[in-house]
Amino acid sequence: MSTGEPLTLYSDILDTAYAEAITGLAEGGVPVGAALFSSTGRLLGRGHNRRVQENDPSIHGETDAFRKAGRVAGGYRDKIMVTTLAPCWFCSGLIRQFNIGTVVVGESVNFAGGIDWLRENGFDVIDLRSEKCIEMMRNFIRDKPQLWDEDIGQG
Amino acid sequence: MSTGEPLTLYSDILDTAYAEAITGLAEGGVPVGAALFSSTGRLLGRGHNRRVQENDPSIHGETDAFRKAGRVAGGYRDKIMVTTLAPCWFCSGLIRQFNIGTVVVGESVNFAGGIDWLRENGFDVIDLRSEKCIEMMRNFIRDKPQLWDEDIGQG
Repeated sequence: MSTGEPLTLYSDILDTAYAEAITGLAEGGVPVGAALFSSTGRLLGRGHNRRVQENDPSIHGETDAFRKAGRVAGGYRDKIMVTTLAPCWFCSGLIRQFNIGTVVVGESVNFAGGIDWLRENGFDVIDLRSEKCIEMMRNFIRDKPQLWDEDIGQG
Repeated sequence: MSTGEPLTLYSDILDTAYAEAITGLAEGGVPVGAALFSSTGRLLGRGHNRRVQENDPSIHGETDAFRKAGRVAGGYRDKIMVTTLAPCWFCSGLIRQFNIGTVVVGESVNFAGGIDWLRENGFDVIDLRSEKCIEMMRNFIRDKPQLWDEDIGQG
């Protein structure tokens, strides 16, 4: 997928990630959701952060979506990872190692993660600057700062 | 833990990772094992790659060991991640994000992953150049090249 794709598609797939984040929030968890799509917009996997819910620090939104997709034939270069928040180093490393060509992020205001590094290494990162994603994360960080710090290894 | 620690300790903890890798190999999987230890050598979590066994591409040795340790109080700066093979970008990103201060690798001959990047970013990476780790991985890559390529996102 190139940067020439209509933003409406990206906005549509962000809704899937956002719905996952809202589910996580309702469960008392860190509200980050993600999904993996094919280049034609077929959903391959979706998930959300479950550090709190499963006492598992390895389940970030992106790693969960990647996992749910299982073993994908043909590699990931033409796949799209969409996430409500810019991917941390862990998830940016996932994207780089598995060569997921396109990354759509809901926002990078509250946390920029590794998106500059991904761009420098040839990945197509589209930042949708979604107001609802920005607000969701801002509220969460304000309400549960310790949990957020723990989730990004600052705890 | 500083680089001044005796190599015998590192060699001892590598044995835990190696035993995990051997278990993975016996299961028909990718033979990479890892473990997370406290600075005093207490085992916090151990695991191995289970891409094949669980159809889950997100379970690398390091992510499995990290996961098994659960939510660790006090952060990871003084913890030690030991792994039979140099960590890929995914696992190097894990180490960087969660600030796991010391990384002990069995070998980096068959795959160097992100160890230079970790060193550049202040992480203490000790490469034990273990002959048994080198041989195990060399044999696996020779015997199952497609599975190896898939595991590092080249499939």
